[in-house]
Amino acid sequence: MEPATREIFFVKRPVGMVQEDSFRMETRKLPTLGAGDILVRIRYLSVDPYMRGRMNLGRSYAPPFDLGSVMVGGGVGTVEQSRDPNINAGDWVVGQMPWADYCVTSGAGVRVLDESMPPTTALHVLGMTGLTAYFGLLHVGQAKSGDVVVISGAAGAVGSQVGQIAKIIGCKVIGIAGSDAKTQLLQDTYGFDGTINYKTQDLREQLAEICPTGVDVYFDNVGGNITDGVVNYLNDFARIAICGQISLYNSVEPELGPRTLMPLLLTRRATARGFIVGDFAPQFGDALKQLQQWYQKGQLRMLEDVVEGLQNTPQALIRLFRGENVGKQLVRLP
Amino acid sequence: MEPATREIFFVKRPVGMVQEDSFRMETRKLPTLGAGDILVRIRYLSVDPYMRGRMNLGRSYAPPFDLGSVMVGGGVGTVEQSRDPNINAGDWVVGQMPWADYCVTSGAGVRVLDESMPPTTALHVLGMTGLTAYFGLLHVGQAKSGDVVVISGAAGAVGSQVGQIAKIIGCKVIGIAGSDAKTQLLQDTYGFDGTINYKTQDLREQLAEICPTGVDVYFDNVGGNITDGVVNYLNDFARIAICGQISLYNSVEPELGPRTLMPLLLTRRATARGFIVGDFAPQFGDALKQLQQWYQKGQLRMLEDVVEGLQNTPQALIRLFRGENVGKQLVRLP
Repeated sequence: MEPATREIFFVKRPVGMVQEDSFRMETRKLPTLGAGDILVRIRYLSVDPYMRGRMNLGRSYAPPFDLGSVMVGGGVGTVEQSRDPNINAGDWVVGQMPWADYCVTSGAGVRVLDESMPPTTALHVLGMTGLTAYFGLLHVGQAKSGDVVVISGAAGAVGSQVGQIAKIIGCKVIGIAGSDAKTQLLQDTYGFDGTINYKTQDLREQLAEICPTGVDVYFDNVGGNITDGVVNYLNDFARIAICGQISLYNSVEPELGPRTLMPLLLTRRATARGFIVGDFAPQFGDALKQLQQWYQKGQLRMLEDVVEGLQNTPQALIRLFRGENVGKQLVRLP
Repeated sequence: MEPATREIFFVKRPVGMVQEDSFRMETRKLPTLGAGDILVRIRYLSVDPYMRGRMNLGRSYAPPFDLGSVMVGGGVGTVEQSRDPNINAGDWVVGQMPWADYCVTSGAGVRVLDESMPPTTALHVLGMTGLTAYFGLLHVGQAKSGDVVVISGAAGAVGSQVGQIAKIIGCKVIGIAGSDAKTQLLQDTYGFDGTINYKTQDLREQLAEICPTGVDVYFDNVGGNITDGVVNYLNDFARIAICGQISLYNSVEPELGPRTLMPLLLTRRATARGFIVGDFAPQFGDALKQLQQWYQKGQLRMLEDVVEGLQNTPQALIRLFRGENVGKQLVRLP
C-alpha cells in the first residue's frame, strides 16, 4: 500500500526574479516499487542557486527543467520500503530527490549514509556544498599556504566552507557579505581573518586596507559589481574560481558593466576558470574522506538555515536570491 | 669618434588615442663605449600594441615609460664597434633598442643573429611575435589537433602566426579581421579555414555558420564587442588565451559592455588566462628551434608592413591602433 505524496511542479519559466507562481503543488498516489526500487520518505531538501539557471531555456551546465515536471534537487530521506538488496528499510539515503513528501526511486541512484554523521551534513559539509568548496578552492583556485583568498557570497553555504578550508591550509581569508549579521558570523563562527559588508562599506577601500599585498585567489559566487571591485586587487598569476554569479541569475537582459576584467587578467597574467563540482566526480571519494576528517576534528562548521514544510520550498529557494539565508538553506519535511 | 644620433623621446602621456605630440626627436652625441659595450647602428625597429600600456601611469605588466625618456622596443641592427669579446663589428644583433639611429649598449643585453635567416625575422617569426603566438596557443590555449581555434586581430603579427601554428598542429582556424584585404590575406597567404570581416559581416551569424560545433580555443588580441560575440560560441572546457585587448587600449574611461563573460565561463567550465611571453623565457630556446624549423619548411610566413625612417616611428605605432597595418609593423632606418 503506497502512500499518497504531495509534489511541487515547475509550471512557469520566470522572467527576472523567480516568484512562487513558477510552482504548483499537487497530490498523487505513488507508483508500485519495481525490482531495485526503494520508497523514500524525504526528510530534508537542499535548495541551491544553480536551480535558477535550470529554470531558463537555453544552455547551462545542467539541462533546463521541463515545464510541467516535478522539481528536483539534493535531498536526504529514510527508506520506508526497499526492493534493492543493498538497502534496508530504515536506512538514511542521499541523492537527487523530487520536491515531494515521498518518492519511489532506483536504489542504485542514492548513497546510504554513514549514521555516525548527522544526516543533513550529506547536503552540505559532507555533500555537494563541501565538495564544491574543496575542488573550487584547491583545484580550480590552486590555493596554497600563505595565499590571500577573497570570497564573495561568503556567508552562503559554499562560501563559508571555502573560507574554513582556506584557513585550514594556511591562507589569509577575507569574506564579502551583505549584512553585519553575516560578517559577524564569518568572523566569530567561521574564523575569517577579515570581512567586508558590501552594502554599508566601500568595497575597494576595504580591500585596499585589508589586503595590502593583493589577492591571490578570488572565489566568486556573486559576480557583477563585487567582482569588478575585487579584480582590481588581483596579484600577478592570481586565480579566479568562478563558482556562481548569483547577482546576475535573475537578470532579464545582460547587465552592463565596465570592461575591466579581460585587461586585468591580461596585465596580471591571471586566470579565471568556471567549474561545476560534477567535473570532479572521480575524485569525490578521497575528498569526502578529507572533509569528514576536518569535520570530525571540529574544523568545518556549517550553520543550517531551515525552512519548515514542503509547501515552503519555493520560498526557501527565493530566500537565496534575496540574500536572506545565513548558512546552508534547507527545507525540513516534518 | 662616436657619431651623433637622433633619438625619439616620450614627452607627454596620451589621453585616449595616442598622437604624435607624445613624442619629440632630438639629436645628441653618443657616449664613449665602456668595457663590454657595443655601438649598434639600428636597422629595424618593431612597434607593438603593448607599448600603449607603458605610456600610461599605473600598473601594467611592464613598468610605465618615464616622461622625458627615450622610447624603447625591439630592434635589430649591425654592430659598428665592439668592446664585447663575444661580438664582432659587422654582426647583426637583436634586443631592446631605443628609437634612435644608433645606440651604445651592453653586449650582454643583445643576441647575435644567425645570418642564415633574414634579420627582420628576429622581430617576428623567430622573435617575440612568434614566441607569443607559440606559447599563447599551445601552453595558454592548450590547443590540440582537431580543435576549432578562433583568433581576433588575426591579420596582425601575432594573430597570423597563431593561425599558421594552429594549422600546422591540425586545428580548424577562423580569423577575425577588419577589412576584406585582411581576410583575403588570411585565406590566401596564411591558409586560414575561415574568416570574418567584423566591420561588414554579422560576427555572430558568421560564427554560427563557420563554427557549427563551437569554439575550443579563442586567442584574443582585441577584446570588447568582438570578444562578446565569440564567447557565446565557446564549447565546454574551452580556453581563452588573452594576448591583447587592443580595442580598449586607447579608452579614457573603461567602456561598458554586457556582463556575459563570467556567467559563460561558469556554465561552459571554460578558462580565460592572460599571459605575456616573458613568463615563458626559460623555454624560449626550444620554441625558437621549432619555429625556425617550421619557417625553413615554408610553413610559417609573415608579411612585413614597413614604414621608412626613424622620424616616422610614432606614426607606425599609431597605425597599429587604427588597424592600418597588414602583417608585422616595422620601421626601417635607411
